[in-house]
This record gives sequence, structure tokens and C-alpha cells, in this order.
Amino acid sequence: MTAPDKHPLGRWDVESFPGHRVKLGRDEPLRLECGVELAEFTVAYQTYGTLNPDKSNAIMVCHALTGDQFVAEPHPVTGKPGWWDYMVGPGKPIDTDRYFVICSNFLGGCMGTIGPKEVNPETGGPWGLDFPVITIADMVNAQVMLLDHLEIEQLFAVVGGSLGGMQVLEWAASYPERLFAAAPIATAMHHSAQNIAFHEVGRQAIMADPDWCGGEYLSRGRWPRRGLAVARMTAHITYLSESSLQAKFGRRLQDRDAITFGFDADFQVESYLRHQGSTFVERFDANSYLYITRAMDYFDLAARHGGSAAQLFDHSPIRFCVISFTSDWLYPTVECRRIVNALNAVAANVSFAEIETDGGHDSFLLDVPEFHRVFRGFLEGAAEHRGLPRAVPRRNGP
Amino acid sequence: MTAPDKHPLGRWDVESFPGHRVKLGRDEPLRLECGVELAEFTVAYQTYGTLNPDKSNAIMVCHALTGDQFVAEPHPVTGKPGWWDYMVGPGKPIDTDRYFVICSNFLGGCMGTIGPKEVNPETGGPWGLDFPVITIADMVNAQVMLLDHLEIEQLFAVVGGSLGGMQVLEWAASYPERLFAAAPIATAMHHSAQNIAFHEVGRQAIMADPDWCGGEYLSRGRWPRRGLAVARMTAHITYLSESSLQAKFGRRLQDRDAITFGFDADFQVESYLRHQGSTFVERFDANSYLYITRAMDYFDLAARHGGSAAQLFDHSPIRFCVISFTSDWLYPTVECRRIVNALNAVAANVSFAEIETDGGHDSFLLDVPEFHRVFRGFLEGAAEHRGLPRAVPRRNGP
Repeated sequence: MTAPDKHPLGRWDVESFPGHRVKLGRDEPLRLECGVELAEFTVAYQTYGTLNPDKSNAIMVCHALTGDQFVAEPHPVTGKPGWWDYMVGPGKPIDTDRYFVICSNFLGGCMGTIGPKEVNPETGGPWGLDFPVITIADMVNAQVMLLDHLEIEQLFAVVGGSLGGMQVLEWAASYPERLFAAAPIATAMHHSAQNIAFHEVGRQAIMADPDWCGGEYLSRGRWPRRGLAVARMTAHITYLSESSLQAKFGRRLQDRDAITFGFDADFQVESYLRHQGSTFVERFDANSYLYITRAMDYFDLAARHGGSAAQLFDHSPIRFCVISFTSDWLYPTVECRRIVNALNAVAANVSFAEIETDGGHDSFLLDVPEFHRVFRGFLEGAAEHRGLPRAVPRRNGP
Repeated sequence: MTAPDKHPLGRWDVESFPGHRVKLGRDEPLRLECGVELAEFTVAYQTYGTLNPDKSNAIMVCHALTGDQFVAEPHPVTGKPGWWDYMVGPGKPIDTDRYFVICSNFLGGCMGTIGPKEVNPETGGPWGLDFPVITIADMVNAQVMLLDHLEIEQLFAVVGGSLGGMQVLEWAASYPERLFAAAPIATAMHHSAQNIAFHEVGRQAIMADPDWCGGEYLSRGRWPRRGLAVARMTAHITYLSESSLQAKFGRRLQDRDAITFGFDADFQVESYLRHQGSTFVERFDANSYLYITRAMDYFDLAARHGGSAAQLFDHSPIRFCVISFTSDWLYPTVECRRIVNALNAVAANVSFAEIETDGGHDSFLLDVPEFHRVFRGFLEGAAEHRGLPRAVPRRNGP
């Protein structure tokens, strides 16, 4: 039997990861939407920058489906730069010389926070499918408990793209008094039928893999790498625009002059996708993938808050900035406009930008200067209103 | 060992299917693009209507990826109506009182024409992955041999949607003297990077299924139903528009009042997709799916004919009608316009219609009156020019 918190390859020891791990729910358990109560559960999180004395400069960054708490530093498994390295750091739009950044691995994740690959105290083995199905509201409630633990009364801002943006919306709807500003990016107020459909294909691919073992692969020393790779490949197509795929790969061949009349990766786009699949399975847990996609499918902000989108943000004191990308067909501008419409319907404080880009949904992760300019501007304006001091310019040299 | 031409469930006996089966290539083998020669191979085909004495009223219908020769009659495996029942029949746009319709199961198919599930004469077992990788040009060349066998010099028209439309384009580019009219529908002159990517995901899903057995599942009495179902589910999403999925299913639940906090098919769209997957695997061969998707990926009409799209149809005597659908994102209007542009560049005889519909790529298979009206009009106009007599109206009663 493989130790439950170890990757089968032995390279995935969350205890050795940088950052913080805290046990929450000791005094009062986290009551999940499904009814299960989590008492004493671990949340892994990372921080950047310094919390100011009056604790008014904290920004909660919410990560997306396959992201994690390593926002702006090398990933402990892959060694690659942090997933929002363009955005977070000294002098960057989320300026860690000015703001204190918190990012926690969400509930159900696989980078140290409680999730299906962690130990179920009742059995001593990995949770597997005995882990309760969680929702985005549950994720946010866990983040609120983390905030209480850090004794921060109000966040300066909550920001995030994609699933991160859904968490931002849930924060704003459920805890309006605990954030000053909110930036939901490339996201939607609920998952569409097509969104659910693509996720369902991914889940079916995982569950069809015999190495998934009904979810018990960890205790059996197996790893459903083929199914998880197919799930990732499918999803990855939805993260890119048709035109960016065409520009990046077109019909160009991979290391060959002519088609081989076979099923090898003749085309660069095939080789690229296979690579995406095979690297993903080295850093992500298949059951986590099931749980997190399920949480996204279940997300329906208006339905959860009484059914009316317009009433969601009534009298909200929050300053909002909603950002979409022209080439995003997973959460297209029309979905972001629904958020803006709901905010405008109650005369909320909202600005909206649709950024021209070819990068598809993944644009929020890419080096898109116009996006960064808009985002920086929003944060700086909000910081002014919040009365945050400007960043002290760093001096070069000793 | 399961008999190689039998479906594992024993319900798929191509010998018992209606229609015709002919051995081609006896005198001269079919030389495939990959270099392999096929001597004596079976083509299964179906006809509707009556060939007129001067053999001028024949229409070749080219079927799409998962279609077959059963255009306008119940499918012998599923019992469902023919896949183009709306279009082909007495009094319908392709009026079998006027035209003689031929549809052959394409090369590499699984409904009676030679393909990976048929017997390899060299081994006596199923071809499996020893079957040569075929192309759309190969499919068309086999159809030309069928035409020679039927002693038809010139077709009145070649028509088809999707992969069927690619065959139409190949017919028009390679055999301009053998057809009077051509209608490529919802198709493209080559496969885009995104098209290839979705196909590659499907192939990887099939090949990841241990029941695929390296392609030898038939001789081992296995059937990669899980992998093939995932492939079908992925592809099926691309056949429908986002808005039609939303209109048809939205976030509605399947036979329940509330989400179950689990991985069952809570949502109607999940249930629908699972059904699409599970029924497909009862009527389609997994290796055929690999071969046909590969043929589509390899399709690049201009590259095959010297690299210039504009020169493809130079001095073509053919009357063309190109049709696209507004909601088709798999082969969107922009791809059909490229065909029209290539035809216009050489002042070919071409009409073009973009049909307003919500049905996505599948629109060409659906009851879309405007599409049928345009298509009927094109055929009737071309028939006039060709000097075909009008259909004799059918009398009711005895």
C-alpha cells in the first residue's frame, strides 16, 4: 500500500512543500452544503508581501481548477514559475510591496488542503470517494475560517479568474462586509450546459480508466494516468481559442516532413496535447479533478441566493471590476456581462473591461499587458479609496 | 475467438444487412495514398430510386464520420430512421422519384465495406491496426470504382455534409468530368488545429481503454466500449451549438428535484451525453473510428492538389452549391467561405447559402426547412440545366 498522502511516484510529499499549513474547524466544524461536517481539517496556503499594522492591505487570490497556492514562486512538483507570476510580485499589478497576498489551496484540492487524497481519520486510509462532495460556497467558507484564523476582519480585495472568479462572486454575495473590492475575471455566475458537458466527458474518461479502481487507486498503489490525461486534453482545448491553436500549430507536422499514415502524433497540435496530458498527471490528483469539476458544475450563484441575479448584490458596498476576454469561449464575454448586468441592476459600483486577446480562456494567465494595465488601475483606484499607503519604491543596490 | 465480422454482441452481422455488396479491384487494385494496394475488396452500398435509361440522374450521397449507407431506411442495427430521412425519399429534396441515389459505406467503415474490422486475407483474422491508413482521396477513388462497376459515366451530383462534404470537394477536384453538380455542406477544405485536437482526444480515449488491446480487441473477444463512449461524448459536444445545449438542457436536473452531491448524472445534459456514448458503442467499431478521424485530420485539399486553393477548381465545369450553418462551430461559415472564395477566384459556377439555425454542426442532419428549400432549389435548377425530366407525381390510392 502506498502512503495515502504520497504521489505514487514518491515526488509529491505535501508536508515538504513551502508555505503554511493550518488546522481549522477545531472549535467549530465547517458545515458543508451537503450536510457533512468537517471538524479539524488542514488548509495549505501561501502568502506574499507583508500585512500592514491595521490589516487593511490583504488580497485573497482564488486559484482555478488546476492551480494551487503557489501563485508567485516555483511550483514544488514541476519547478515551473508560479501560475500568476505575471500578476503577483514586487512592482507587479498585485504589488507585493504594497499588498499582502494570501492564496489557499481550495477545499478538495491536492496540494495540502483536505481533499480526497488526504487521510480519512475514520479509516486511516485516503478518503477517495468517501470524501464529501464540496461546493464553491464550501471553498469560500473554508477561506473565511482561514481569514478568522489570521485575524483579518476585512480583505482589501478578493480576485481570481475562472473557478477563482466564481469564488470571488461567492465571497461578494455571501460576505459583502468582509471585502472592500472584488475582481471576478473570465468567469460566470453559473455553469452552462456546455460547460457541464465538457466536465462530464473528463470525469467519464477518468472513471473509465481501470487504474481509477472505483476511486481507490491510492490505497491500491495505482494511478489513473491515462484517463486523467484524456480529461486534461479535452479541457485544454476549451482553454484555448480556435484561432490561437491555428496560429500556434495550424497543420504543421511534428519533427517530420510528411504524414506517416499512422496514429503517432504527426501534427504538432497532437504532440502538444499529449504533452499537456502526460505532464498534468504528474502533478494532479484524479479524484480531486472529479470533485473540483463537480463543484464548478454545481455552481449557480443566483439559485443559491434565492433565485434572483439582480438581488444578489443589492446594497453591496463592494467595488467590482469584471474582466472578460474576447477570445474566451469557455466563459465568454456574454457570461461576464450577466454579472455586470446584475450589478448595474442594483446600481453597484462596477467597472467592466473586455480585453482584446487571442489567447482564449487562458488569457487571464498570460502576459496580456492591456489586462494587467486595467487590473492594476482598478486595484490602485480602490487602494486610494481604502486609504492604503503607496508602495515604498524599492531601492537598487545595498 | 469471436468471428471477426461479428459485433461481440452477435447483433452486427453485415452479411445480413439490406443493400448491395460488391467486390471491387479484381482487375486493377486500388492504390492507396499510403502506397498499399487493395486487390479485391468489398464495398457495401445502398441505392434508392431508379437509374434512368441514359444514366444521367444518379446522385452520390457521401456519408459522414458515423453515418453509413442507410440514408433513407431503418438502420439495420439500431432500427432508427435513415440518417438523411428528411432529405432523401419520394417528394423530398433529393427526390427518389426523380433521382437515383447511391450511397456507399466508405473505405475504412464498419457497415460492410472493407475496414479494420473485416478479414485480412493474409491472416484470416480481423485487420485491426494492420489495415492501411486511408485518406479521403482513397474513399473517393473507391467510390469511382463503384461508379465504373455500375457503368455510370457521369453523376448528376455528389452531395454530403461534414466528412461527406470533404468527399464532395475531393470528387470535384479530382474528377471534375464525372459530376455535373456538387454540394459540399457544413464542411471545410482542411482540418483545423482545433478539429485535429478534438479528434486526437477521441483517439487517445479509445487507445487508453485496456479493452482496445492494441487494436486486437475483436480477435480477443473484447470491445473498448468505455473509451469509444468517451470519444463519442467529446465529439458530440462539438456537433451541437452552445445555445442549443443551453436551450435543450440548461441546468435542468435528470429525474430529481435537487443535486445529489455525487457523481451520478444529476444534470440532463450529463444523462444525454452518457446515452449518446453508450448507444454509439453498440453500432460503431472503435478501430474504424480511429481510421476515419485520421482520414479527416489528413484532409488538406489544396495541399494535395499542388498547394493553391485558387487553382483547385480552375475551369471546373461543375455547378456548386456550398451551404453552411450559422451555429456550426466545428466547420463554421468562415471555412465554407474559403471554399466559395476558391471557386469565385476562378469564376466557377457557385452559389452559397448560410442558413440561420441553432442546431450547430448537426444542422445538416436535422429538419431545417430553409436548408431543405435551398438545397431542393439548387438540385432542381441543376436538373433543369442537365435536362433531367421532372418527377412523375405519385398517384394516391390504387
